[in-house]
Amino acid sequence: MPHDAPPEGWLERYSAAVVATIRLTIADRPGELGALLDLIGETKAPLGDISVVAVGSTTKVRDIQVYCLDHDHLDLVIAKVKSHEHVRIEHVVDDVLEIHRGGTIETVERVELNSVTDLRMVYTPGVASVCQLIEREPEAAWEYTHKGNRVAIVTDGTAVLGLGDIGPLAALPVMEGKAAIFARFVGISADPILIGSKDPKKIIETVKLIHQNYAAIQLEDIGAPACFEVEETLSKELDIPVFHDDQHGTATVVLAGLINALRATNREPGDCRAVVLGAGAAGLRIARFLVDFGLQDVILCDSRGALYEGRPEGMNPWKDEVALVTNKGKEKGSLADVMKGRDLFVGVSRPGLVTPEMVSSMAKDSIVFALANPVSEIPVREAKLAGAKVALDGRGMNNALAYPGIFRGALDVRASDITMDMKIAAARALADAAQSGELMPEMLDEGVHEAVAEAVRAAAST
Amino acid sequence: MPHDAPPEGWLERYSAAVVATIRLTIADRPGELGALLDLIGETKAPLGDISVVAVGSTTKVRDIQVYCLDHDHLDLVIAKVKSHEHVRIEHVVDDVLEIHRGGTIETVERVELNSVTDLRMVYTPGVASVCQLIEREPEAAWEYTHKGNRVAIVTDGTAVLGLGDIGPLAALPVMEGKAAIFARFVGISADPILIGSKDPKKIIETVKLIHQNYAAIQLEDIGAPACFEVEETLSKELDIPVFHDDQHGTATVVLAGLINALRATNREPGDCRAVVLGAGAAGLRIARFLVDFGLQDVILCDSRGALYEGRPEGMNPWKDEVALVTNKGKEKGSLADVMKGRDLFVGVSRPGLVTPEMVSSMAKDSIVFALANPVSEIPVREAKLAGAKVALDGRGMNNALAYPGIFRGALDVRASDITMDMKIAAARALADAAQSGELMPEMLDEGVHEAVAEAVRAAAST
Repeated sequence: MPHDAPPEGWLERYSAAVVATIRLTIADRPGELGALLDLIGETKAPLGDISVVAVGSTTKVRDIQVYCLDHDHLDLVIAKVKSHEHVRIEHVVDDVLEIHRGGTIETVERVELNSVTDLRMVYTPGVASVCQLIEREPEAAWEYTHKGNRVAIVTDGTAVLGLGDIGPLAALPVMEGKAAIFARFVGISADPILIGSKDPKKIIETVKLIHQNYAAIQLEDIGAPACFEVEETLSKELDIPVFHDDQHGTATVVLAGLINALRATNREPGDCRAVVLGAGAAGLRIARFLVDFGLQDVILCDSRGALYEGRPEGMNPWKDEVALVTNKGKEKGSLADVMKGRDLFVGVSRPGLVTPEMVSSMAKDSIVFALANPVSEIPVREAKLAGAKVALDGRGMNNALAYPGIFRGALDVRASDITMDMKIAAARALADAAQSGELMPEMLDEGVHEAVAEAVRAAAST
Repeated sequence: MPHDAPPEGWLERYSAAVVATIRLTIADRPGELGALLDLIGETKAPLGDISVVAVGSTTKVRDIQVYCLDHDHLDLVIAKVKSHEHVRIEHVVDDVLEIHRGGTIETVERVELNSVTDLRMVYTPGVASVCQLIEREPEAAWEYTHKGNRVAIVTDGTAVLGLGDIGPLAALPVMEGKAAIFARFVGISADPILIGSKDPKKIIETVKLIHQNYAAIQLEDIGAPACFEVEETLSKELDIPVFHDDQHGTATVVLAGLINALRATNREPGDCRAVVLGAGAAGLRIARFLVDFGLQDVILCDSRGALYEGRPEGMNPWKDEVALVTNKGKEKGSLADVMKGRDLFVGVSRPGLVTPEMVSSMAKDSIVFALANPVSEIPVREAKLAGAKVALDGRGMNNALAYPGIFRGALDVRASDITMDMKIAAARALADAAQSGELMPEMLDEGVHEAVAEAVRAAAST
């Protein structure tokens, strides 16, 4: 039997990971559809599109889209629909699987191939003159191949979403999704590169061997600490940008949200005392970004509590480095201890680690970014009830807001590196693009990505 | 000063590697254009499109497209045009460079990303359920990602066209051109992979590390003997097809031409005594294909003449292997010696190595495939004058005829290997698709590629 419906308000805490369309035949009488939707409502599954597929003399065939917590929840919805006596289910389609069927990206030709002359220019013999030009002048590859607009999205699949180490093949739908966003919003061609090794040395060696036809490398879902070694080494040794999205993309979006949250709470960066929870790739980078942005007092916490220079246990070279620029007062203690009186909490850790009491102990009009994936450290509503003036979870702070424009800008100026100035400029542009009263802009507003790109181009040239 | 015009009939021997469009303003009087075209004709440059761009009161602006041997030849054409007193050149565009500007392929999204629901299904949080499915059942990646329709085109740039070792970056326009043909004719997504090492061990290691999101690997323009080690090892160790186009694609097209040439000269495979010139990747593979197809007497020649088992000099393990199945009579001697009385010559060597006398010494109604790139071993016209009943050069025998359909067929049946049966089936399909009286079908005839794919699918399932 399907389990019970999720609790009231589940969408405040969880995402609808399953989207399904139920095709059914229903008696065509006033009240029938309403009664059916009431039944579905008992399962707490929100409805999406409802459309008419066919009309019979006494029946209609309809598609009803539902959003569910998981497949068990969908089973419950289906059982409810079946319990309605004037309805017959024709089939149920998993809309998420359907949209991913065959993949979400493809490679297509950019030129006409409709005549023998076209073929002889694109391929042999004409192409030889392009090859010879690039052999003489390698720079010409930026103009006469797609290199200048092509990014590799590199993963080893060790830290995928909130799923952990699922391997590179299972990570492919994420890489394709990122590439689809690249193509759709900023016209960049991104190729997923799945690396079948977790050894940072092998990842580095592989990317170095294949980097020549890319204008930039986006590292994605590579776990800490391998991601640090991979990014540092490749950034040093390649002459194109290497950008670990889980660090820099996430930190840029957090910074954008912070800029607007500071405005909303009348704070200056220097007055904002922060605590960051989670010392993985994102947390370490966010702590550094906050310091670079001008916050004077930032404490990073891991599962052992506050990080400080010389802490005897649970350190690594990257934590050591961050400890040098954070927690100048060497505060010790648990998360609950160091949250007291602070203005800003940023969580990139695990679900449920923050209680309402901990939020209540923060400074007045506190800012809570509870970004754990897929379920936040504390629900936004609870954080607000506990006194936060501003609260957001990962659904409101998507790193897909930052990376498209950042790469577009970097590629446009053929940057060899994406500097801190470029990332801060991107964050400011994102903050400025938010609608009045909102912390973050809308992903689907194409002007956002161009505004970020423009800010990045300007920052690169100064 | 520009050099002289190429000799009369240069297009029989050379390809027009430079295509340019000259935009000019010319007096709008009867006879002016004709006089100008006469002048251009003196340079032996064929004309392409001629179009009117703008019309003035006494002048017209025209675009005139010309095909030239090389850039010196184009300079000569430009000088001639300038010498015409009623003409002013506005600009000259290199059409080949223009078609390659920005590259010839791109990556695009295959799904709509127009709503928040679209985004949440293609990317987080919805994508997580697709990842989890693939983690549980890796086979699902063939259905719910683009893996099943994606091919890697791998090169180290060591044997590119007739240009030799120009490096992987300079080879990129060829890889993009091949990918554009894949996309245009059979809807396969192909990603160029440029490997910055000539070491076969490193090429093998790199491809093994990144192969997971591809349904097949096309090796391209990797020099001998590295290509043999790379192909053999990867074929053995990967569970997807690994196809070195310079070997198998070329050999398939040669076999297609041979099937029709045998028909045209009333020969059976077993009666056709062959000599193959060139013991690189293509030559070694063609010799094996001919034997596998049923030719009883095949001799392979390299620069030292006929190859035979136990030849004391200039051998390598791959030549040793081919020597076991060819030249059973252990004939020794130069190319000229062993061509005498033979029915078929296939050249994949260097320009000009075959004389009319050598063709005359062959059997009556001989077949000459002189495929050296970019200039053949003997011009087709000369071979025919010397007695060949059938003669073709590389322009008439393009390996782009074979690989699109072969890969389409292999991917459609999710083949783990492209077998000899599949390649022979492809060759037969190509031969059958040729117009009556022609040896080879037209590349632009889309039915050809589907016919090859269908033959390959059928051969795979037997």
